[in-house]
Amino acid sequence: MTTLNELFTPIEPVQKSLQEQAQLKIDFKTKPPGSLGKLENLAIQMSAIQNSLDPKIDNKAVFVFAGDHGVTEEGVSAFPAEVTVQMVLNFLQGGAAINVLCRHNQIDLKVVDSGVNGDFEANENLIQKKIRKGTRNFVHEEAMTTEEALAALTAGKEVFQEYYKNRPLDLVGFGEMGIGNTTSATAIICAVTDAPIENNTGRGTGVDNEGLKRKITALHKALEKHTPDTEDALDIIKKIGGFEIAGMTGAILEAAANRTAVIIDGVISTAAALLAFLIDPNVKDYLIASHRSVETSQSAALEIMGLRPLMDLNLRLGEGTGAALAMNLVESSCKIMTEMASFEDAGVTNKE
Amino acid sequence: MTTLNELFTPIEPVQKSLQEQAQLKIDFKTKPPGSLGKLENLAIQMSAIQNSLDPKIDNKAVFVFAGDHGVTEEGVSAFPAEVTVQMVLNFLQGGAAINVLCRHNQIDLKVVDSGVNGDFEANENLIQKKIRKGTRNFVHEEAMTTEEALAALTAGKEVFQEYYKNRPLDLVGFGEMGIGNTTSATAIICAVTDAPIENNTGRGTGVDNEGLKRKITALHKALEKHTPDTEDALDIIKKIGGFEIAGMTGAILEAAANRTAVIIDGVISTAAALLAFLIDPNVKDYLIASHRSVETSQSAALEIMGLRPLMDLNLRLGEGTGAALAMNLVESSCKIMTEMASFEDAGVTNKE
Repeated sequence: MTTLNELFTPIEPVQKSLQEQAQLKIDFKTKPPGSLGKLENLAIQMSAIQNSLDPKIDNKAVFVFAGDHGVTEEGVSAFPAEVTVQMVLNFLQGGAAINVLCRHNQIDLKVVDSGVNGDFEANENLIQKKIRKGTRNFVHEEAMTTEEALAALTAGKEVFQEYYKNRPLDLVGFGEMGIGNTTSATAIICAVTDAPIENNTGRGTGVDNEGLKRKITALHKALEKHTPDTEDALDIIKKIGGFEIAGMTGAILEAAANRTAVIIDGVISTAAALLAFLIDPNVKDYLIASHRSVETSQSAALEIMGLRPLMDLNLRLGEGTGAALAMNLVESSCKIMTEMASFEDAGVTNKE
Repeated sequence: MTTLNELFTPIEPVQKSLQEQAQLKIDFKTKPPGSLGKLENLAIQMSAIQNSLDPKIDNKAVFVFAGDHGVTEEGVSAFPAEVTVQMVLNFLQGGAAINVLCRHNQIDLKVVDSGVNGDFEANENLIQKKIRKGTRNFVHEEAMTTEEALAALTAGKEVFQEYYKNRPLDLVGFGEMGIGNTTSATAIICAVTDAPIENNTGRGTGVDNEGLKRKITALHKALEKHTPDTEDALDIIKKIGGFEIAGMTGAILEAAANRTAVIIDGVISTAAALLAFLIDPNVKDYLIASHRSVETSQSAALEIMGLRPLMDLNLRLGEGTGAALAMNLVESSCKIMTEMASFEDAGVTNKE
């Protein structure tokens, strides 16, 4: 069987010297040092990722990975499981929030079927990578087999690779759709970070108090039953993961290996990034956290990776909506780096 | 002498019924209710401002008001006073951060000379409304005369009016440039909100510890000397204000009177909005707070007006940079309202 090391190209860490040069360049722009806050950090990160003091974003895309979850049998979601299929169709018809935000920001949008419980006709915006029609209910059995977990990671890698071959990306965002997937993401994050389930289980799409209790119970049962090896991403994925989560993990690793900056979205894509981080910690140099999700477990995962979210808009929709909204900030940061005048250029007196 | 009531057109409050209809419309979009967080609040606010369930942003602009401050004599700033002139020239040459962000976001940018200590040649992007070459040092005397304060407010009103006549705006942002103006803004906010000077005086462009002490001393002296009438915007402006701050106040009031949504930026434009709020509290329905500034006094002003900032990017540059960055979020919120499918349109099953 393929091992994870064989599957993924090692990710190069960014160069410290490039970061220092970028810092110097931005410090001589006509503004008090540091006064553009997180935008300056972003500009430096983008420079380091692209190995250039003139970072640019010519091509950008968002991939929405979709998959179904057997654990919905436990009554953990406010919406019925068939909504996953319906929302994928909504994405393909252009009516969802992520469509609107991608159109507005000129972001190419692709939808990936990693494991939806339904069939779709061919569509130019749909990438078919279905591993299985939904995971097994991980309260009772492992979510998937090791072969399925590897296949889902590989499929994610291929999604990025195949796209990139035709259109190299400077910036890629990841989002998802999958009724039940905050349960899987929370299980993954609590397992890896040791964050307590009680304070870190959110309402997902808006489950009521009874549903929240069922969700917490399901999470306890799953983690007690499976005790995943918290350093082994493959073990975690097969026991408590989701096909769309594994797909994002594979795509994130491949993006970073190609030196493409990666914007993650809410709790589910953050869980996928955390798994990518377990596989190759160098991925963190390429990760940008778009927003702080209403789902609190996200924070535990971001903290372990040393990421600070750009925005706090009380989002909890997923689909990559936060990632799409944050792309404009990343583009802005690159243009600050390339277009803004220095004190010398502009004849402005520097700080006394 | 003209009174403030004669000067400004009364602002209509937005209609509660329109807000309710907008809430209903957004609740039937294909997403869990409330899951787009602050973007939903924005969409509802924009609908109410435009009196339409299909809010749109066709035209948007940022005005940067510039002025000098006599209080710089007290050594309250990290940069010398001549930087105000130099930065205005930088704006006109297109090299400042606000130029970059406006170009990137297709925002029209105009610079207003409200009271810069220098002379400028005519420029299509410069609006000449100089009242005086800088305020007087308000530690020792009133910053301006009552006539000058009224003239500065009137000039701001005219700036918006004259622009709007040729190009009606759906969204307008305000920013500023003026070495020493965080001292004036902090004085205004501490006077109006009763926030203590010690915890609410920031470093502005980055003054050192000694400079911060001088700034706090100057603020104490100024407020003790003048004891402005905290309900009278005109009294506050003439005693401790700035020409660019008064200009923004006049423009904000005129924008709201024309039902144009107003995005404010950092502590200085927030102080201008606070003065507008004293003159006509209905202005608050039209205000959008773009970001939480590093300058803490801003929070006291936002709280009194009931505003919650969209972003927290650790910005402290001013110039309208936060406002320009937030415009994309406001545009996104309008498009969510107009372009996103409803559950019915998309055939998606609603919450159980």
